[in-house]
Amino acid sequence: MAKQIIDFYWDIGSTNTYFAVHLLPPIAARHDATIAWHPFNLGYVFRANDYVLAEEPRAKLSHRGRDLRRWAEKYALKFSMPSQFPIKTSIPLRGSLTMRKLDLEVPYIQALFEAYWEADKPEIATYAGLKPIVESLGVDSAEFETMSESEEIRAQLAEETNTGMERGVFGAPTFFVGDEMFWGKDRMDFIDDELARKT
Amino acid sequence: MAKQIIDFYWDIGSTNTYFAVHLLPPIAARHDATIAWHPFNLGYVFRANDYVLAEEPRAKLSHRGRDLRRWAEKYALKFSMPSQFPIKTSIPLRGSLTMRKLDLEVPYIQALFEAYWEADKPEIATYAGLKPIVESLGVDSAEFETMSESEEIRAQLAEETNTGMERGVFGAPTFFVGDEMFWGKDRMDFIDDELARKT
Repeated sequence: MAKQIIDFYWDIGSTNTYFAVHLLPPIAARHDATIAWHPFNLGYVFRANDYVLAEEPRAKLSHRGRDLRRWAEKYALKFSMPSQFPIKTSIPLRGSLTMRKLDLEVPYIQALFEAYWEADKPEIATYAGLKPIVESLGVDSAEFETMSESEEIRAQLAEETNTGMERGVFGAPTFFVGDEMFWGKDRMDFIDDELARKT
Repeated sequence: MAKQIIDFYWDIGSTNTYFAVHLLPPIAARHDATIAWHPFNLGYVFRANDYVLAEEPRAKLSHRGRDLRRWAEKYALKFSMPSQFPIKTSIPLRGSLTMRKLDLEVPYIQALFEAYWEADKPEIATYAGLKPIVESLGVDSAEFETMSESEEIRAQLAEETNTGMERGVFGAPTFFVGDEMFWGKDRMDFIDDELARKT
């Protein structure tokens, strides 16, 4: 049978996606499923829905911080809220599409989430800030920037975002197994069930 | 050691609370913990926070329905969306405080959730609609109404709601183990962890 695919819609600016980046791969591995990484512009989706995280009720935002620390503790992750949040994420997202062309997508995504969500490096929003990651992967940073600024890559990120919205994406992380959509770091067991159903 | 207490803030009008009413008791039992049931007016809290569920993005509301059906399936619950939703819940909430005085709080709550969330009986919003539940518990329905309309019970529901908000409640279901607050039907494993930590 063909390998199952999990479409993973991610944005480096999404706190909850950080957790999913760590929690999904073991589940995928257990079912020998492939993760198809889809960078998309979550800020664009939020604006389309008139959603502003900072406008949530104060009690909810306060609980959110407590909840995130609990998840970090439960799964022994080095999570810390970055000193700048939110950030513009188009450049690092386009960068992941460049890295896809160079067959370096997964290590780039891992390094990106570690930099922003563990090492407090909000400078990954810029090419200068991405340089250490890019060079550690053996890619020339000027070439990386040229490719990431190309019309082709720009169009590709817009298309990923639009396709996601057409499929029903309204937040991150979002996952699809076939036509079944899952939303949230807290739906891993449902993804697990869905993969098991079809294995 | 004294039994641990789980404060459970619930409103019969909350879809996600229906699931928690089924998922929490086995966890409480495993730790020999007591559930302290706190009815509160979720609509009042939502209005205080300018929150209107129906104004959520269409994609999010559509996914919500899918997610609820998945939970029902996973836990083999007879959940179905009521034909009238939302409803005014002050009367059935005050009714639970009356039943608390009569030592019938838990069977009343169970019957209430079954009526609205399984048997599509939105008439539980009224005394006439509550009558079958009240009488099945051996309580005179006229007496039930008189008690539930009393100033004492009215003040008690307002106080539960205000105390909940002071403690940080912004949605339902919400739980406290000591000062630790948990929100959502999808945080049962964290409550389990918290009880285990203190057992």
